[in-house]
Amino acid sequence: MSVRVGVNGFGTIGKRVAYALLNVGGVDLVGVVKKTPDYSAMQAARAGIRIYTPGEKEARAFEEAGLRVEGTLEDLLGSVDVIVDATPNGVGESYKPLYTKAGVKQVYQGGERAEVAEVSFSSLCNYGEAVGRGSVRVVSCNTTGLLRLICTLDKAFGVEKVRAVLIRRAADPKEVKKGPINSINLNPPSIPSHHAHDVKTVVPKIDIVTAAVVVPTTLMHVHHVTLRLADKPSRDEVLEVLARTPRIIVVDAGLTGLKSTAQLIDASREVRRRADIPELIVFKDSITLDDGELMLFQAVHQESIVVPENVDAIKALTGMAEDGETAIKETDRELGLTKSII
Amino acid sequence: MSVRVGVNGFGTIGKRVAYALLNVGGVDLVGVVKKTPDYSAMQAARAGIRIYTPGEKEARAFEEAGLRVEGTLEDLLGSVDVIVDATPNGVGESYKPLYTKAGVKQVYQGGERAEVAEVSFSSLCNYGEAVGRGSVRVVSCNTTGLLRLICTLDKAFGVEKVRAVLIRRAADPKEVKKGPINSINLNPPSIPSHHAHDVKTVVPKIDIVTAAVVVPTTLMHVHHVTLRLADKPSRDEVLEVLARTPRIIVVDAGLTGLKSTAQLIDASREVRRRADIPELIVFKDSITLDDGELMLFQAVHQESIVVPENVDAIKALTGMAEDGETAIKETDRELGLTKSII
Repeated sequence: MSVRVGVNGFGTIGKRVAYALLNVGGVDLVGVVKKTPDYSAMQAARAGIRIYTPGEKEARAFEEAGLRVEGTLEDLLGSVDVIVDATPNGVGESYKPLYTKAGVKQVYQGGERAEVAEVSFSSLCNYGEAVGRGSVRVVSCNTTGLLRLICTLDKAFGVEKVRAVLIRRAADPKEVKKGPINSINLNPPSIPSHHAHDVKTVVPKIDIVTAAVVVPTTLMHVHHVTLRLADKPSRDEVLEVLARTPRIIVVDAGLTGLKSTAQLIDASREVRRRADIPELIVFKDSITLDDGELMLFQAVHQESIVVPENVDAIKALTGMAEDGETAIKETDRELGLTKSII
Repeated sequence: MSVRVGVNGFGTIGKRVAYALLNVGGVDLVGVVKKTPDYSAMQAARAGIRIYTPGEKEARAFEEAGLRVEGTLEDLLGSVDVIVDATPNGVGESYKPLYTKAGVKQVYQGGERAEVAEVSFSSLCNYGEAVGRGSVRVVSCNTTGLLRLICTLDKAFGVEKVRAVLIRRAADPKEVKKGPINSINLNPPSIPSHHAHDVKTVVPKIDIVTAAVVVPTTLMHVHHVTLRLADKPSRDEVLEVLARTPRIIVVDAGLTGLKSTAQLIDASREVRRRADIPELIVFKDSITLDDGELMLFQAVHQESIVVPENVDAIKALTGMAEDGETAIKETDRELGLTKSII
């Protein structure tokens, strides 16, 4: 019997999770909740995705646009085992009582407070902690990018300390009201940024400080990460570990010319739907090791990096996969993740 | 008797140095060398600055534009004691034989190789080394910003180690052909960037690694700097040292709302010609100290930060001021540098 899943919210993350679930074995996407009948609702309908609205009053606009509505969020909650909340930052928590009353398992996004769910989740770090739970929170894009690296290196070599500078994209490509156009914004001007705390919601013991700026671009975040490793591996040993880790692509900038977020996305447009890059990109050229101090650049595609983790979260909550390794392997096959974007 | 100075090149740096020299006591700006009779040549002429051209063939276009030309670069070299080379990156070196033949002292910019001059120069670090020399190279904007901080903290507390991430502006406001528009470019994808090496041309002993990205903005660079201090000062002791150091402005983002390069420049437009900020901006809110590990954000106005150092360089070469403290104090008064941009 399939696990029945609903997605509340059809923005950047919600729509990607919904489309991804169409390819996940053992999952039945019952429907998605959408507020307005815009182009992405029209595309969802054409793809055969059933549309629900938050309440009855929103349904009329859909009908006027010629889009069929299956019911309300409450109707959807009555016919699913798991709800993926992909509503705007901080809104998910306000739905929690409704989800809980309906008795459905809950997947939240990183924009919510950690307290919204039983476990803050990142597949390569703590899949096992989420198995059989009632709710998880998939941490945000930047935190997911940091955690994929940190947990991978921690398992292999022990990570004693992390210092990261996050150069964040200002807005997603579809956001037409955000800025800045011409500025570097300290985000915030104080150190640490909230990302250090967010990493600790998943790996509490880690010594981490993060600082962040926002810059006028829409494509990807870039991180400069410095890690002190307990073992003192060689550069080749680090590369070997990254090369065998799922969800991390090591890019050779010198060989391929991929030296920027623009070029990464341009390459991705040839081989990926929507130019999504759910994998963490680590730049081989940047990997610098000096007596256990590792420095590197990595790039994070904010629109898609958390999508595989959302799928894994459903598998963990429902026990579809008992261990992370199996879940990750299956999810990556179902979603088409690879070890290269060339 | 005044020191006679010429400026070769009238771009971003050259024109600022030339205008600054009009206010420097004991200096006679004999003239500037300019290639094309554009708006900035017209403004120079209106300000009473004498214009020379690289050779005779460029003079005709100036005459056609109604601009008087005093002679060629060689004519200018015949009537100055010091030439400030502000030609494009790497071009200055090709003029060196001409300068040397004319027997003039030489100030180069940071875009040249260190070997072009006897000393790589940053006033707060090594003024004394340049006194009486034949040539100096004023290091670039990013390096000047790093060195003002490093040398200040090194004198006060001892700096054992520096790790810096440079978030660079893509182009100056007047550059109409450069990008990127929508990308974060690794600059370069390998670590370290050349800035670490450039810092060492002035303070060879320092343990420093830098990494850099370029982002789509024109206003200022932002640096995230981590320093290990030998003494373990309190945050207040660090603030106190920065507060009494010339050419550094400590900005309280929480109090003033100055949290971005756009806001810094907007404030500067009220109180500064061209919105120039030759001072290094250090964000008070970002100053974080943990057991001798200092982290902070700083901002560098690439168009103007090296201008006071160029003036100091002339004073050092010619012995107008024997010690850095005196030179810096006078230059800052002459150029209108302050400890606030509010």
